[in-house]
Amino acid sequence: MLVALVGIGKIALDQHVPAIAGSPDWELAATVSRHGSVEGVEAWDDFTAMLEARPDIRVVSLCLPPVPRFAYAAEAIRAGRHVMLEKPPGATLSECHALQDMAREMRVSLFATWHSREADKVDAARGWLSDKTLRRLTVTWKEDVRRWHPGQAWIWEPGGLGVFDPGINALSIVTKILPKPIHLSGAVLKFPENRQTPIAADLAFAHPDGAEVTADFDWRQEGDQIWTIEAETEAGTLVLSDGGARMTVDGAEAGTEEDAPLSGEYPRLYAAMARLVRDGASDVDLAPMRHVADAFTLGRREIVAPFEE
Amino acid sequence: MLVALVGIGKIALDQHVPAIAGSPDWELAATVSRHGSVEGVEAWDDFTAMLEARPDIRVVSLCLPPVPRFAYAAEAIRAGRHVMLEKPPGATLSECHALQDMAREMRVSLFATWHSREADKVDAARGWLSDKTLRRLTVTWKEDVRRWHPGQAWIWEPGGLGVFDPGINALSIVTKILPKPIHLSGAVLKFPENRQTPIAADLAFAHPDGAEVTADFDWRQEGDQIWTIEAETEAGTLVLSDGGARMTVDGAEAGTEEDAPLSGEYPRLYAAMARLVRDGASDVDLAPMRHVADAFTLGRREIVAPFEE
Repeated sequence: MLVALVGIGKIALDQHVPAIAGSPDWELAATVSRHGSVEGVEAWDDFTAMLEARPDIRVVSLCLPPVPRFAYAAEAIRAGRHVMLEKPPGATLSECHALQDMAREMRVSLFATWHSREADKVDAARGWLSDKTLRRLTVTWKEDVRRWHPGQAWIWEPGGLGVFDPGINALSIVTKILPKPIHLSGAVLKFPENRQTPIAADLAFAHPDGAEVTADFDWRQEGDQIWTIEAETEAGTLVLSDGGARMTVDGAEAGTEEDAPLSGEYPRLYAAMARLVRDGASDVDLAPMRHVADAFTLGRREIVAPFEE
Repeated sequence: MLVALVGIGKIALDQHVPAIAGSPDWELAATVSRHGSVEGVEAWDDFTAMLEARPDIRVVSLCLPPVPRFAYAAEAIRAGRHVMLEKPPGATLSECHALQDMAREMRVSLFATWHSREADKVDAARGWLSDKTLRRLTVTWKEDVRRWHPGQAWIWEPGGLGVFDPGINALSIVTKILPKPIHLSGAVLKFPENRQTPIAADLAFAHPDGAEVTADFDWRQEGDQIWTIEAETEAGTLVLSDGGARMTVDGAEAGTEEDAPLSGEYPRLYAAMARLVRDGASDVDLAPMRHVADAFTLGRREIVAPFEE
């Protein structure tokens, strides 16, 4: 299938382009970007013009930041194209609902992707937890914003989500691996004095069986970077680390290779998109984004030291 | 039908008690509250004990503030009771989704009420707008917090929503009367230096046909109180004022009495709840709350003068 990639920035070049190149399902037929391009691929800067000139490209993959994304997604759907959205699927929950309605009406596939859900051991963790009684779940997601988001000014602007930009990856895994739904019961959001989005957040969730569920997101981490989810159950403790790439149960490596047939998060996302288009289906799970919106709504705001890149 | 009223504060005494007393469908069989009670009605302070002692009371109406409400709602649903929720239906969107799932599983009726949607002229406004092309919609919701929320400390605490507590009423009307869905495109939230929730907010929404949709919420209004929605269309201008109680089209009174057979917002809510229970149905529309969560997520935060009651 032919796909057009819109928004040629870091995530597109690091992840989307190689995943498309390595897939038997896909061919990168065009890029749309003001600045970026991909060698050997037809490059556009006018999205409307691309849609009109290339009716043969039935699928559009959007890697723009969340705030401008809606207008592109809406235009693509109205033009009858299937649409794949980077995470988070939009700047607001309401616009995601609107896109769902539009996709249904236009009978196209809409895929709100959560790349971290495709990390190697996430399915195995889900399987292991499915029949266990959870006592405690602790998310620790601490990284250095200077290292992972150099020059990305939009992450500090309203709608850029701040530390929830990586944190929502953790929430996308948690909402996939837990068999029962949780909801936020309290949060503290730490806003740098000179920024519009939080640099750190502590979250507490209510669990139907009373398990203690917490998350600690921090963008001020120097040295070792930590992306870990620890689940203590009555039958042992599962640790998912490196963002879902590694898994141990009671300290021993777990999660066999059969759990992860295709290699890599983005190759799996593109394989899933190919299936959705073939099946005429959509996949839009807004749960991770709802938890983030809940944190902004219910969270206690604290002002912390200014952040300068 | 017998109903138990939980949370006997200002809204319960001002609105719920008289609405129940005046209804042919309902009898107030019990109250649950730490401090309040209603003369002549069995009074409890232990909710669990009430549910156990009075299995004949099949319906529970919750008027507590949003943060503690979930635990009561969940317990009532698990005990097989039908539940009616004051607005907003919860402190988080995720807990509202969880309640919906629980109500479905337990086969009980869940009603997330929006009392302003039952104001006298709202249905007439919806009817009038249904076949018009919208050009501009302007919401002005300005009231004096000291007058309407005396001593309600929870409105300033995380989850209390601040000026969105009345503002969500406006959003509940807007989402009912507009034939097409809108989504937030930008917002400014004004937080008093010493408070956790905003005292004022300016919102801008995207409309599918490009109509200019804005809302101006302010809790610092002295003198005349303003709860107005003005809708400019290609076929004239509709003004809904006094929170939906009055309506004009191009300056002339409009919306006949037939549009509003039952009198009063809360009597209509209780009549609707009686219908839901009889029909085995639920009514949970989270759109107004989603817009508020979107505003907290996407809004630019500004710090303004401290607020002292």
